[in-house]
Amino acid sequence: MKIVIALGGNAILQKGEKQTYSNLIKNIENTCEKIIPIIKHNNVIITHGNGPEIGYLAIQNEIARSEVPAMPLDVLGAESQALIGYLFEEQLLNQLRKHKIYNAVSTLITQVLVNKNDPAFKHPTKPIGPFYNKKQAISLKKKGFSVISDAGRGYRRVVPSPLPLKIIEKDVIMKLIKNKIIVIAAGGGGIPVYLEKNELHGIEAVIDKDLASQVLANSIKAELLLILTGVKNVYLNYLQKNQKIIRKMNLKEAQKYIKEGHFLEGSMKPKILAAINFIKNGGKKVIIANPENIMKALNNKAGTLITK
Amino acid sequence: MKIVIALGGNAILQKGEKQTYSNLIKNIENTCEKIIPIIKHNNVIITHGNGPEIGYLAIQNEIARSEVPAMPLDVLGAESQALIGYLFEEQLLNQLRKHKIYNAVSTLITQVLVNKNDPAFKHPTKPIGPFYNKKQAISLKKKGFSVISDAGRGYRRVVPSPLPLKIIEKDVIMKLIKNKIIVIAAGGGGIPVYLEKNELHGIEAVIDKDLASQVLANSIKAELLLILTGVKNVYLNYLQKNQKIIRKMNLKEAQKYIKEGHFLEGSMKPKILAAINFIKNGGKKVIIANPENIMKALNNKAGTLITK
Repeated sequence: MKIVIALGGNAILQKGEKQTYSNLIKNIENTCEKIIPIIKHNNVIITHGNGPEIGYLAIQNEIARSEVPAMPLDVLGAESQALIGYLFEEQLLNQLRKHKIYNAVSTLITQVLVNKNDPAFKHPTKPIGPFYNKKQAISLKKKGFSVISDAGRGYRRVVPSPLPLKIIEKDVIMKLIKNKIIVIAAGGGGIPVYLEKNELHGIEAVIDKDLASQVLANSIKAELLLILTGVKNVYLNYLQKNQKIIRKMNLKEAQKYIKEGHFLEGSMKPKILAAINFIKNGGKKVIIANPENIMKALNNKAGTLITK
Repeated sequence: MKIVIALGGNAILQKGEKQTYSNLIKNIENTCEKIIPIIKHNNVIITHGNGPEIGYLAIQNEIARSEVPAMPLDVLGAESQALIGYLFEEQLLNQLRKHKIYNAVSTLITQVLVNKNDPAFKHPTKPIGPFYNKKQAISLKKKGFSVISDAGRGYRRVVPSPLPLKIIEKDVIMKLIKNKIIVIAAGGGGIPVYLEKNELHGIEAVIDKDLASQVLANSIKAELLLILTGVKNVYLNYLQKNQKIIRKMNLKEAQKYIKEGHFLEGSMKPKILAAINFIKNGGKKVIIANPENIMKALNNKAGTLITK
């Protein structure tokens, strides 16, 4: 089976953890261990988020600006793909060989087409980087950055998050899968680029990684989109008294729950939207689960299953 | 014909230029234009250096260290592959489509195996980043960095440059070429990794990009290794009164000239060493030329040809 596995931030850095080399290696090694059983029997394409990482790269660029010209967000997106992709490929290769699996692994710098006139460019919504206190938030705003208050947890920088339209390297990914090569691609939702007069240009934004993973999954005709995240299941009335687990839902139910506002923006909502889009565009099923329950979820014994 | 094109620093950033986004785009666009005619009729794998770029990433990491944990050189090497590779792929795609060439392009994060006990780790020789004045050099030394005085041009940070042994993603590259996909790989000489107890680990170093390109070229059985650089030809007694152009040399002559000390360390010498290694390991020919004369050089009317 052709499976796109979309890894959440937790797969790379636990909440509250410092982004050190050893923390990255530890988490990524841990995640790789969990997905090995899937790789054994399927064609796997791995995608991942980059929220904290691109934020830190932006901070480094900002602080060092007087000595080193800062790069725009599209370049930082590329850098975050390499930072995470390299460590992921390295750890995955180590785990694979330990389990006597000899597939090759490839990490592709991936560009994703967006519309230059996407309304998202006028309304930045995607949080990147760490939480700030009020004083830091004011200072960031003065520098021209968009900053939002994040539900009691502090302040965060937000950037535009346009809809992904097309994976530029689709044909490359198809060829790699056909040759049984494991692919790591579309990291951080892909590098946002737009087309003008037949030329690609980078643009400053961060694409939602679940939506980019869905576009990728549809375009390579994956059978399953497996979204791994920090929670075990999708819930109605999440974290409220009347919280209710969803073990299974169909397209219609998913659309209804979205309308009723059950899912958090920038968290569960884009996952459900990605699930809906995937199925609408010909995909068979989506599973949302945490990495610990990955095999159970594949056998319908954990996680949330979304089908037509 | 299968050709590995190794691009020098000038292809990405001109000497003395600031590393701004627009300078990068301008130079890379210019370089892409020059290599389009080769791509039309050959299978091309593009490699490139990262000397200035990884140096700047290291400076950003250093300056922002109190707010963002600094990453080791192997991760910065990966980031430099993405920074350059993304812009290169984007500009190359634009040029290709303009010339109605529809091959796909892929940029691969590439790891290169080194020996952990390579003597280079005790004797750092590879300059990275910008030139410093004496005061800056002393301050860098105090921080534990190795710094050398660079022939009257100032001071530079130097890092270990171990010999490349193997391209980890060789099989991936082979499959991509077979499918007529243009490959950008082994940027900055590749990310240095070593093998211990069957596990890959990153290590802090920068591999020479000409030597890594040669290992890549041999391992995929390329017919030609085309090294593009800032000078038109290889010279004996370079920049001296009795400077003499070399239009053609064989293996024996190349080895003799190396012994006689004709070629600059970290500049022409690794290129000639790469040429010698390539031919010794079964390669047919090496051409050293500047991007302006690329087509002339392919027809033996410019550049320096090295054969058995």
